[in-house]
Amino acid sequence: MAASVLKVARLSKCVRHTYSPTLRTLSTSTPLCQGIPGSVWKLGRLNHIAIAVPDMEKATALYRDVLGAQVSDKVPLPEHGVYTVFVELGNTKLELLHPLGEKSPITGFLQKNKSGGMHHICIEVDDISVAIVDLKARNIRTLSAEPRIGAHGKPVMFLHPKDCDGVLVELEQA
Amino acid sequence: MAASVLKVARLSKCVRHTYSPTLRTLSTSTPLCQGIPGSVWKLGRLNHIAIAVPDMEKATALYRDVLGAQVSDKVPLPEHGVYTVFVELGNTKLELLHPLGEKSPITGFLQKNKSGGMHHICIEVDDISVAIVDLKARNIRTLSAEPRIGAHGKPVMFLHPKDCDGVLVELEQA
Repeated sequence: MAASVLKVARLSKCVRHTYSPTLRTLSTSTPLCQGIPGSVWKLGRLNHIAIAVPDMEKATALYRDVLGAQVSDKVPLPEHGVYTVFVELGNTKLELLHPLGEKSPITGFLQKNKSGGMHHICIEVDDISVAIVDLKARNIRTLSAEPRIGAHGKPVMFLHPKDCDGVLVELEQA
Repeated sequence: MAASVLKVARLSKCVRHTYSPTLRTLSTSTPLCQGIPGSVWKLGRLNHIAIAVPDMEKATALYRDVLGAQVSDKVPLPEHGVYTVFVELGNTKLELLHPLGEKSPITGFLQKNKSGGMHHICIEVDDISVAIVDLKARNIRTLSAEPRIGAHGKPVMFLHPKDCDGVLVELEQA
């Protein structure tokens, strides 16, 4: 954690530095703020695709009984205002979401999308604190000031869809 | 292929049979039409998430330069009416789509979603011919009568979003 805080502090002093898709790991001896390709955080695997559904039992039955995937139990997450069911696809998961409570964040989405639809994608990052500082410096807006604890008990942060080609992107600490 | 055709022929004679998420492989000695748990086709991994984008260069730059992912070259697929760029996420890919030509299938989507958005998900199956016959028998509609050859040169079939919780699901032969 100390190293992470240090990286955030160093990153905050930078304006912009050049990235390279082929070199993402910065050695400790490499100066950060001199436009050298690399980064202090790394994008990881796709954790899940979230799908908002109007009927959780029907959606679960589709993936379990018709498409034959393994599905989890339905879990209420009152602090997030949703029920979740995870569908296992081998290399990643679908996260079925259904509103829980009157202030569910997906109620509006389902009012606009009566049949349901893809709500967000979740990509893992190796250091969410550093990633957020870096992305904010690059004018990528976040939906909250600080990370929250997500469905997997790990810090998560949502990036603004307007800055991500209309896609709501959740970053999750790996 | 002969085995596949045989399975399709046998499956076409069935009305409904019971599925189990924990048993998906049917042994050759197991009768198919007697309600025995199992299936003759199997859902596989998530191949990609397709994202329709209004500005391919900007979207590519987001994933390559800001988020630091490896991205492919932009490839025109005139037979599908799209340009594609694949973003590598380690366990799966994002497929960025931009219209190509006047009859692009994603033009209407981008008119409704000016900033872009998630267009479809693609899941692999081990036997697409058998899967299609089975799914049609279970009242899952497809967007075409027969599979087409997709972006990876393999047979693909789109399932109707109204039958899949508002999600356009592409099945691709693994």
